[in-house]
Amino acid sequence: MFEHKDKTNISSLGEFKLIDHLTKSFTIAKDETILGIGDDAAILDSKGKHQLISTDMLIEDIHFDIMYSPLVHIGYKAISTNISDICAMNARASQILVSIAISSKYTLQAIEELYVGMRAACEKYDVQLIGGDTSSSVTGMVISVTAIGYTEEKSIVKRSGAKEGDLICVSGDLGGAYMGLQLLEREKQVYLESKEMQPDLEGKDYIVGRQLRPEARKDIIDLLEELNVVPNAMIDISDGLSSEIFHLCKQSNIGAKIYEDKIPIDQLTYDTALDFNLSPTTCAMNGGEDYELLFTIPQADYDKIKNSMDVSIIGYCTALHEGKELITKSGNVVTLKAQGWENFKEKE
Amino acid sequence: MFEHKDKTNISSLGEFKLIDHLTKSFTIAKDETILGIGDDAAILDSKGKHQLISTDMLIEDIHFDIMYSPLVHIGYKAISTNISDICAMNARASQILVSIAISSKYTLQAIEELYVGMRAACEKYDVQLIGGDTSSSVTGMVISVTAIGYTEEKSIVKRSGAKEGDLICVSGDLGGAYMGLQLLEREKQVYLESKEMQPDLEGKDYIVGRQLRPEARKDIIDLLEELNVVPNAMIDISDGLSSEIFHLCKQSNIGAKIYEDKIPIDQLTYDTALDFNLSPTTCAMNGGEDYELLFTIPQADYDKIKNSMDVSIIGYCTALHEGKELITKSGNVVTLKAQGWENFKEKE
Repeated sequence: MFEHKDKTNISSLGEFKLIDHLTKSFTIAKDETILGIGDDAAILDSKGKHQLISTDMLIEDIHFDIMYSPLVHIGYKAISTNISDICAMNARASQILVSIAISSKYTLQAIEELYVGMRAACEKYDVQLIGGDTSSSVTGMVISVTAIGYTEEKSIVKRSGAKEGDLICVSGDLGGAYMGLQLLEREKQVYLESKEMQPDLEGKDYIVGRQLRPEARKDIIDLLEELNVVPNAMIDISDGLSSEIFHLCKQSNIGAKIYEDKIPIDQLTYDTALDFNLSPTTCAMNGGEDYELLFTIPQADYDKIKNSMDVSIIGYCTALHEGKELITKSGNVVTLKAQGWENFKEKE
Repeated sequence: MFEHKDKTNISSLGEFKLIDHLTKSFTIAKDETILGIGDDAAILDSKGKHQLISTDMLIEDIHFDIMYSPLVHIGYKAISTNISDICAMNARASQILVSIAISSKYTLQAIEELYVGMRAACEKYDVQLIGGDTSSSVTGMVISVTAIGYTEEKSIVKRSGAKEGDLICVSGDLGGAYMGLQLLEREKQVYLESKEMQPDLEGKDYIVGRQLRPEARKDIIDLLEELNVVPNAMIDISDGLSSEIFHLCKQSNIGAKIYEDKIPIDQLTYDTALDFNLSPTTCAMNGGEDYELLFTIPQADYDKIKNSMDVSIIGYCTALHEGKELITKSGNVVTLKAQGWENFKEKE
């Protein structure tokens, strides 16, 4: 679906020149960075703050499909999803390291596009690229990102601090990234069957964007600070709401009660799910890749957060022995099942 | 050449259980680690020290070949080579993050072997595993490692500090890892032609070990501290002595004069090179993967270091305009060429 017109063979550069070439236009600088790219290691001074560090790997044809993902979006997503992990600790990312491995099918122009997306994400989130590695691969592309952030010790929010009675909150809306993926996969099949058919994604920008170019909810971290709310526990929703609730409950030793009618689902997500004969709630619970934040706050903070349009209160924390339950729109009580990565695997 | 008898399908576990399973036997803990594996990010407190951070990616059939590399060694090498980058800043690694992607050809037992090697390296170098990620890949294995170390600001040694007149030193001996690779590649060809032939590596343990299970020269960092020597510049030799001299010279704005007869080459490396009709000096200059340290010290420190058996003084730093020269055993002056990664690629 996407093609690159200029074709420069990567091997005509070589590793060191390639790194220089790809990273020279990254201009963000951060106070804590003493030395960035160009030595055996980067040097950081965290200036007394606590540091958060997280790493993630993206593999072609496992985590992304270049048939329908423009490389500029793949680059953006590789950065934003890692920044999301730092946001999930109630902190802001500051530095990033990127390693890539690429097969000979990629031209220099293709890799430049990838880095245009990475640079856009670094600028959007005010993050400095301080290191990395490029190498060749036998097939396809591998991107590994390590994100670093800082914050005061007292602001850090782990998965393990949720308390019985806490309100369970979620930012944005859920299921969109999953429905975007279903659409893209369907159009890919249509295209593979008849190369003359062009993908029909009209009016679906929102959910396609949720899949291809997700954002880290740094704005929610800003909002929480502004509202003077420090959540008791937080996690980002990468594997689906259900799976993340399981993580929070397990690590906090609590149960949870979630109300189906409170789960935020965008109208387009809802309608598209019905078009695909899927339950919108199931898509929101198990879809994954929305990169929204799931967090719990003390009931005393309800007044501070109740008017925030982009935060939904979807339930509350219960005692461990009460288990994890979904109260459906019709008032039925359903026991939640962990879904996400582990389960989707079997379906595919 | 290597086979695993017990075969558990990885997908019978699932991502989270797999991480738990693989990492539970890692027991090293470090002062700076506030929180390790199990949340969205690890939490570190560098306690006022400067932090060094480096990342690297290893790809099956590019950086390692499971035909002749036991997985336990691949795991060890993935860790030790990253620690080497931290040593090259005159610091000691303290934490590590590991992401792996594996195809379905790998059994759980195979991945356990990989982690046995990683654990051995973590124990040897006193490094704590604090995070990572596991996922599936379409083909083969990818390992991405991020290493973190700490030191006082005044102890950090960059590539850029070498001064005219500095002595150029190298630890250990060179070319062994490259000759080990040549041997392993030859035996692989023999094996592929006749599966009944067993590899003949008798008496070659040293150079095979240099290739399969290299060490980071943390002991040299300890020695330098003991001798009260802070090098002006340092780099680890991953791409070959010649390539690393180019990096040091470029970043320090100097030239270099290297004496062929001072380059440390082990007898077995020497003899094996001749067996292969290769010049031992060429192997030492361009072979790569020895992970020795190349550093420069002021002449005033000569007396401190002259009795260190494991450090060779191979030349000295000259003015930039004098270029980079090798003085051969016969007294000829040869202009050094950057070799290493970029050049080897063309030969292969």
